[in-house]
Amino acid sequence: MGKKIIKNGTIVTASDTYQADVLIEDEIIAMIGKNIAIDGAEVVDASGLYVFPGGIDPHTHLEMPFGGTVSKDDFETGTMAAAFGGTTTVIDFCITRKGETLRNPIAEWHAKSKDKAVIDYSFHLMIGEMNEDVMSELPSILSDEGITSFKVFMAYKNVFQADDGTLFQTLKTAKDLGALVMVHAENGDVIDHLVNEALALGYTDPIYHALTRPPEAEGEATERAATLTGLAESQLYVVHVSCEDAMLKIKAAREKGYDVWGETCPQYLVLDQTDLEKPNFEGAKYVWSPPLREKWNQEKLWNALKNGYLQTIGSDQCSFDFVGQKDLGKGDFTKIPNGGPMIEDRFSILFSEGVKKGRITLNQFVDITSTRSAKLFGLYPKKGTISVGADADIVLFDPNVERTISAETHHMAVDYNAFEGMKVTGEPITVLSRGEYVIKEKQFVGTLGAGNYIKRARYGKTLQNDSDIVTV
Amino acid sequence: MGKKIIKNGTIVTASDTYQADVLIEDEIIAMIGKNIAIDGAEVVDASGLYVFPGGIDPHTHLEMPFGGTVSKDDFETGTMAAAFGGTTTVIDFCITRKGETLRNPIAEWHAKSKDKAVIDYSFHLMIGEMNEDVMSELPSILSDEGITSFKVFMAYKNVFQADDGTLFQTLKTAKDLGALVMVHAENGDVIDHLVNEALALGYTDPIYHALTRPPEAEGEATERAATLTGLAESQLYVVHVSCEDAMLKIKAAREKGYDVWGETCPQYLVLDQTDLEKPNFEGAKYVWSPPLREKWNQEKLWNALKNGYLQTIGSDQCSFDFVGQKDLGKGDFTKIPNGGPMIEDRFSILFSEGVKKGRITLNQFVDITSTRSAKLFGLYPKKGTISVGADADIVLFDPNVERTISAETHHMAVDYNAFEGMKVTGEPITVLSRGEYVIKEKQFVGTLGAGNYIKRARYGKTLQNDSDIVTV
Amino acid sequence: MGKKIIKNGTIVTASDTYQADVLIEDEIIAMIGKNIAIDGAEVVDASGLYVFPGGIDPHTHLEMPFGGTVSKDDFETGTMAAAFGGTTTVIDFCITRKGETLRNPIAEWHAKSKDKAVIDYSFHLMIGEMNEDVMSELPSILSDEGITSFKVFMAYKNVFQADDGTLFQTLKTAKDLGALVMVHAENGDVIDHLVNEALALGYTDPIYHALTRPPEAEGEATERAATLTGLAESQLYVVHVSCEDAMLKIKAAREKGYDVWGETCPQYLVLDQTDLEKPNFEGAKYVWSPPLREKWNQEKLWNALKNGYLQTIGSDQCSFDFVGQKDLGKGDFTKIPNGGPMIEDRFSILFSEGVKKGRITLNQFVDITSTRSAKLFGLYPKKGTISVGADADIVLFDPNVERTISAETHHMAVDYNAFEGMKVTGEPITVLSRGEYVIKEKQFVGTLGAGNYIKRARYGKTLQNDSDIVTV
Amino acid sequence: MGKKIIKNGTIVTASDTYQADVLIEDEIIAMIGKNIAIDGAEVVDASGLYVFPGGIDPHTHLEMPFGGTVSKDDFETGTMAAAFGGTTTVIDFCITRKGETLRNPIAEWHAKSKDKAVIDYSFHLMIGEMNEDVMSELPSILSDEGITSFKVFMAYKNVFQADDGTLFQTLKTAKDLGALVMVHAENGDVIDHLVNEALALGYTDPIYHALTRPPEAEGEATERAATLTGLAESQLYVVHVSCEDAMLKIKAAREKGYDVWGETCPQYLVLDQTDLEKPNFEGAKYVWSPPLREKWNQEKLWNALKNGYLQTIGSDQCSFDFVGQKDLGKGDFTKIPNGGPMIEDRFSILFSEGVKKGRITLNQFVDITSTRSAKLFGLYPKKGTISVGADADIVLFDPNVERTISAETHHMAVDYNAFEGMKVTGEPITVLSRGEYVIKEKQFVGTLGAGNYIKRARYGKTLQNDSDIVTV
Repeated sequence: MGKKIIKNGTIVTASDTYQADVLIEDEIIAMIGKNIAIDGAEVVDASGLYVFPGGIDPHTHLEMPFGGTVSKDDFETGTMAAAFGGTTTVIDFCITRKGETLRNPIAEWHAKSKDKAVIDYSFHLMIGEMNEDVMSELPSILSDEGITSFKVFMAYKNVFQADDGTLFQTLKTAKDLGALVMVHAENGDVIDHLVNEALALGYTDPIYHALTRPPEAEGEATERAATLTGLAESQLYVVHVSCEDAMLKIKAAREKGYDVWGETCPQYLVLDQTDLEKPNFEGAKYVWSPPLREKWNQEKLWNALKNGYLQTIGSDQCSFDFVGQKDLGKGDFTKIPNGGPMIEDRFSILFSEGVKKGRITLNQFVDITSTRSAKLFGLYPKKGTISVGADADIVLFDPNVERTISAETHHMAVDYNAFEGMKVTGEPITVLSRGEYVIKEKQFVGTLGAGNYIKRARYGKTLQNDSDIVTV
Repeated sequence: MGKKIIKNGTIVTASDTYQADVLIEDEIIAMIGKNIAIDGAEVVDASGLYVFPGGIDPHTHLEMPFGGTVSKDDFETGTMAAAFGGTTTVIDFCITRKGETLRNPIAEWHAKSKDKAVIDYSFHLMIGEMNEDVMSELPSILSDEGITSFKVFMAYKNVFQADDGTLFQTLKTAKDLGALVMVHAENGDVIDHLVNEALALGYTDPIYHALTRPPEAEGEATERAATLTGLAESQLYVVHVSCEDAMLKIKAAREKGYDVWGETCPQYLVLDQTDLEKPNFEGAKYVWSPPLREKWNQEKLWNALKNGYLQTIGSDQCSFDFVGQKDLGKGDFTKIPNGGPMIEDRFSILFSEGVKKGRITLNQFVDITSTRSAKLFGLYPKKGTISVGADADIVLFDPNVERTISAETHHMAVDYNAFEGMKVTGEPITVLSRGEYVIKEKQFVGTLGAGNYIKRARYGKTLQNDSDIVTV
Repeated sequence: MGKKIIKNGTIVTASDTYQADVLIEDEIIAMIGKNIAIDGAEVVDASGLYVFPGGIDPHTHLEMPFGGTVSKDDFETGTMAAAFGGTTTVIDFCITRKGETLRNPIAEWHAKSKDKAVIDYSFHLMIGEMNEDVMSELPSILSDEGITSFKVFMAYKNVFQADDGTLFQTLKTAKDLGALVMVHAENGDVIDHLVNEALALGYTDPIYHALTRPPEAEGEATERAATLTGLAESQLYVVHVSCEDAMLKIKAAREKGYDVWGETCPQYLVLDQTDLEKPNFEGAKYVWSPPLREKWNQEKLWNALKNGYLQTIGSDQCSFDFVGQKDLGKGDFTKIPNGGPMIEDRFSILFSEGVKKGRITLNQFVDITSTRSAKLFGLYPKKGTISVGADADIVLFDPNVERTISAETHHMAVDYNAFEGMKVTGEPITVLSRGEYVIKEKQFVGTLGAGNYIKRARYGKTLQNDSDIVTV
Repeated sequence: MGKKIIKNGTIVTASDTYQADVLIEDEIIAMIGKNIAIDGAEVVDASGLYVFPGGIDPHTHLEMPFGGTVSKDDFETGTMAAAFGGTTTVIDFCITRKGETLRNPIAEWHAKSKDKAVIDYSFHLMIGEMNEDVMSELPSILSDEGITSFKVFMAYKNVFQADDGTLFQTLKTAKDLGALVMVHAENGDVIDHLVNEALALGYTDPIYHALTRPPEAEGEATERAATLTGLAESQLYVVHVSCEDAMLKIKAAREKGYDVWGETCPQYLVLDQTDLEKPNFEGAKYVWSPPLREKWNQEKLWNALKNGYLQTIGSDQCSFDFVGQKDLGKGDFTKIPNGGPMIEDRFSILFSEGVKKGRITLNQFVDITSTRSAKLFGLYPKKGTISVGADADIVLFDPNVERTISAETHHMAVDYNAFEGMKVTGEPITVLSRGEYVIKEKQFVGTLGAGNYIKRARYGKTLQNDSDIVTV
């Protein structure tokens, strides 16, 4: 690979904004300076563009089995769409099965991704039940696979749901091993009851998905998970925070000194509960868990991003076709596959609705979409920033171009887009992964399988030799 | 029974303080007035004394099986001691067994109490597991037995502990039937883990009872129970609140408009965690669940009583001899029977430490020890106040006499007193149950079996014909 | 005066509800009992009626000079209307002038009231500026006049407004003397600026009265007054709390243990800011300070009354005719006299909107309208309750009758009613002041000048010989 | 000036930590890269050292008249000591006099600093009273002098204290002009009263300085200033936050969306109120306003820095000799000059007590000591970061060296050090100001007058041509 010089752009990191050139050499950022000129280097003109570190999506479910079907976007279409959207690293969830060795699903996930991913990727590991067997497998999984984050579900009763004993033991184990525990925080018992009650009353429309998963059930579980984290003196990352109630619980935990972090998703910042009431079963397109909330929550979440009460944004990508998949739930909302296509627009939504509307600063945008996730999940400083020595995962972003989101033009494999018709400002023009073009002037020019699996550092450690520096 | 006139006392209710005479006739308060004189009536001189409504202890465990032994005070010694302490009604917990008809334990509890109780009494009903059988039995139990309060345990894993599904279903059912759900709020899963961890490390002393049941485990469970109550639109009474954390959760729930109430106990207001560190295994005398807390919590609980964030005081009476019972736990704190002798000093402790020290008013004292419990548990206005038409359950109380609490002089059947040597001001001199003396000039003059079992009104209703008046 | 027996009513106090008869003799309640029968006594049938203690209105401005005019209702029409509305005691504000002896205005107020009042009354004293002269006068005013509450204004710049130095000194002095400090809490400097800004922009309509007195200016001043109270270790009563912001500051102060109390008014519970936008200058009818707020505040205030975060309700009666007085402000909202006719409907509004709608209990109603004010302002137990020995200030209240509020039928002297056309449930039928009829079957039968001036006890003391009992 | 290359150091910014070389050319950072080699350039070895952006001290009082004396360190000794301590820019307060043109004091401050400062500097402007004259002068002061921050005092009654009207008008004006309002938040009226009260009682020792300025007086004023800021839709920076109470008010304001920022100082993080009780009048060394607080506040302030509730650290440098200046207050604590020597140890204290003890991260350290102040006060990106194009204000810092703070070795002009004997870890080794050595291997090698006066950008704007980027 030859050298590249990105010239005349405005470099943006989680704390800085300045104009300089960037020299890329051997996959990494070799130099940043004024007026860099090197013979033979390719010059990439970034005039009028922001030079962002590539986005890190810490929350995807590609080719994920769920409710008798499989999420539509796999590591091929999913990572391509991610790249179009400015994301250069995804961390997918390896779903395990209770009573079986953890090695099997990890192997499955490697098989799904190896020859498909066009950008770098890594895995989180689901813990369904903590027991002697699981505890004995984990140390080698950390060292061999570089998997340093575990996911526990407090909802999906009789499917994924773990009890408080398992959650607490996982927190304790994660502390000992140096891993970060991730939690889906909703009270599954309550939801199970409410769902059955609704079905018994003949309430089957998509809106009942939201009404049977009230925000209080999320707030309660968030408080519970945070409390257990404090008692275990461990670390916690709450995925897909959808509402003020849960957010406040994270904030309160942090004030107590608990090491608790929160992620929200684009859908919760822009869409709301009324979307589930759309006619002709269209509400099914908006079925996520936790569900979309009343609209007033949106400003609370934005304010939380601004004040640092929530720290990251994940896509929770888990896409299903409206026709053929979502419609499994016609006549019974519990059969609607949960999730939606979100991997591509995560970056744009946050820029357009956040930065452009003055809700967050440009530097916060970078922190939220990239840097913070890199630090939390052991990818930093290899990933997550524009600094000398980092992987040249770079997005050249035009902050002024306007476009309209649509399924007709998006690159995900599904037949609808939850933001259909929404106008956004700002778009990735060119995207580099370790110095190679994946997207060039809005065209895909990458290679299937070019993405590397990344073994991550333990919680709080860096992915380089200065590993004694705490990143969180 | 002849008429009695209580003369020259200062009548105190939950809102009023004034000097007047009280005429008792046919078990009830027939008249209150200035200078009542009736031929043939017995005059009881109450000069210098407060005329309080008899205390209502909403939380006792008499002759209760626990951990392979049985609590020492039964309905005989327990109700006698209660009467000495100014309490004229107790509500005991009928402990049920999962998988068995609820009728059996109710019958057992009637058998235990019928010929022994010297004051009136009633029962709460434990719900261990909610299912079709239990749900079908409950309506008749309410109507036949007048049992209108259900107790759910969130702790004591593998013994009493119910899961969130049972708690939520109980709340829903209680709402439909008109009952109040009571909850022991501690996270049993977490405690179970911490206890096993402590034992594995060889930590066996009584203090580990406290250290393995941290306040956060109580606060978390309280938040959870309150949230489920709000979602069920039901009503909740949190027993034995021991710490600020749990109290704040109750307060927050009430601010949301949830119908949630909180009880504390004398031990949490006066004793603290350091008592469990007393040498020679004496710490075992102070083993309650939840455990005694760090001392600073005491003022938070007092402030909560003053501001109405907590509303009642129960004794959680469950006494065990130090020799022969508590010492079952030598070498293993988990074997120490939980509980202590508290039924006798509940009233005095609250008066001496509360009213005399300016932490609560005299009227709040009456509300907390008597009126509020009467209203919450369907005993009002038959019980819980000095008003015309109410049962003549009356305490003549000398607010200035000083005494020292001691096992040598107390009337409970156990060999120690948790307040041994503590000086208190104020003492019941004479106690009447439905107009009859139980305690007269500090001497027991009552009759075994004279206490009546009281069928209680449904939640929020009065025990008289004006049942449309909401009491809570 | 002969004896009267109120028969068959339901007596309601701040804590109790029960059926009994009441014997009145020599102006006081002599006896309460079942089936009282006395030869020669007049029997007043109260079947189906509540027997309430007469309302105490702690906040009136009768015949008050303001902005170049004088409030319309004086001690004649004002106290008559109060009686129609179920109020048997009013406490009016004696407005003082900086630099002048306090004795003069007190004498003026006695002159205004002496031969007119049809019910009992007392005075608060305004403190405009604290200095050596004022401090030297106060002790004798307390002892001679029984005036035990001082009012400080934080708003009305260059008119009533005192600086923080005067407020702090007043709090210190009140603590030493045993008085309660009352505060009008709005930041006058900010309001002055906003008002001038609005006028400069040509904003002259009544709505700008609200927009130039934002809730934050009230919240801030409330926090300030509460903080100064805590620092002075004194006691504070915040008048006319209009919004959540101020209410939360009072709540927080109480949680810190500060002795701070809060009053709201009917207008803030029922009316809202949009009323000021009524056309044809009708908005002027709704000009109070603090102003009416956004509607969502109402439920926050109701919840605060329920949970005890606010404790009383005053009318802030200060009535001006729409024609001839309110219209002084046409073309300049700052010239609209502040205040409205409220003395008559205070009781009914709280009953109809509060008790009937389940927002507060019946007993809380009594506490809020009567008992709590009696205790706080040194009138208890002479006033504020139905108990033996209390003044026979009694309201027989029909809880089911419906009526429509209207200026055509009200008894205040002004030409409009702020609740015009509003339907309320519940009405006082008969009202007794010290045992004499003032209102009988909805007709005025009282006597001008029959009302007594009441010298009040010091803060926290009772108005009887058991003065060592703390009432607050 | 020749080129310099800083080699082998670890560059630390507010978000990044990485190893690279830095090329300095023409006063600025020209390039950052791996293995930079340029003929003729001086190589500065930074092996094992952190490469920090020079500290920005936003709060100094050099040669400041106070209480009849003048602070000891002037722009010569003060900026030299600052440089030793790792600070390369100070912003001093230009103290104005009511009733006089603002130009005079500005000219005085230029005269004091011009030929003395060894590092760059700028000025804030005190506003004592807002009126037509002041308002007419301000626009040109912003444009001519680049002074874009105004300071208002809420304390020092009859000296600096402004009333709420002036504060509010200043906030409004600042909003219009693009300036940041700074506030000394303590309630001067209350303090004045408490001070007089203490003196009247003969309480004259230094500890009474703290006892007469309670934290509540600071919390109240902070709430007030924040509320006025919200109402004015302006921006506020609260200087020297000393306690939890004030910090919580800033946090709450930010949650409401108010643009409010908070600064603390090293003394509040390390010293506490008991220091004022030191014998032999030594307590006078610890007299700051606000005063040192109870020790428990320290962890609250650290937590606030970690969670972003407070954002910067200033020194509040205002030094007075113990002998000859502080001792003016012997026998009367109000005569003790307020302030202390702090400019030199600000950086080290935060590193040693913050980063080394795990309370904040390394990146937060840079943000708090430098970047955030640069952004807030219009110095960014010229100052406040290590990025290409920025001024080469650089500190090479040894994170492991230990030293003991002492007046014997410090470089400030005063005869004591408030941290005397305290061991800290980490020390600046070499300090560059615009590429020139000021400190080289711990020796001063700078030049008097080499420091430039910096005209600052308006609030939220950058000091370069990309001025549309919002920095805050």
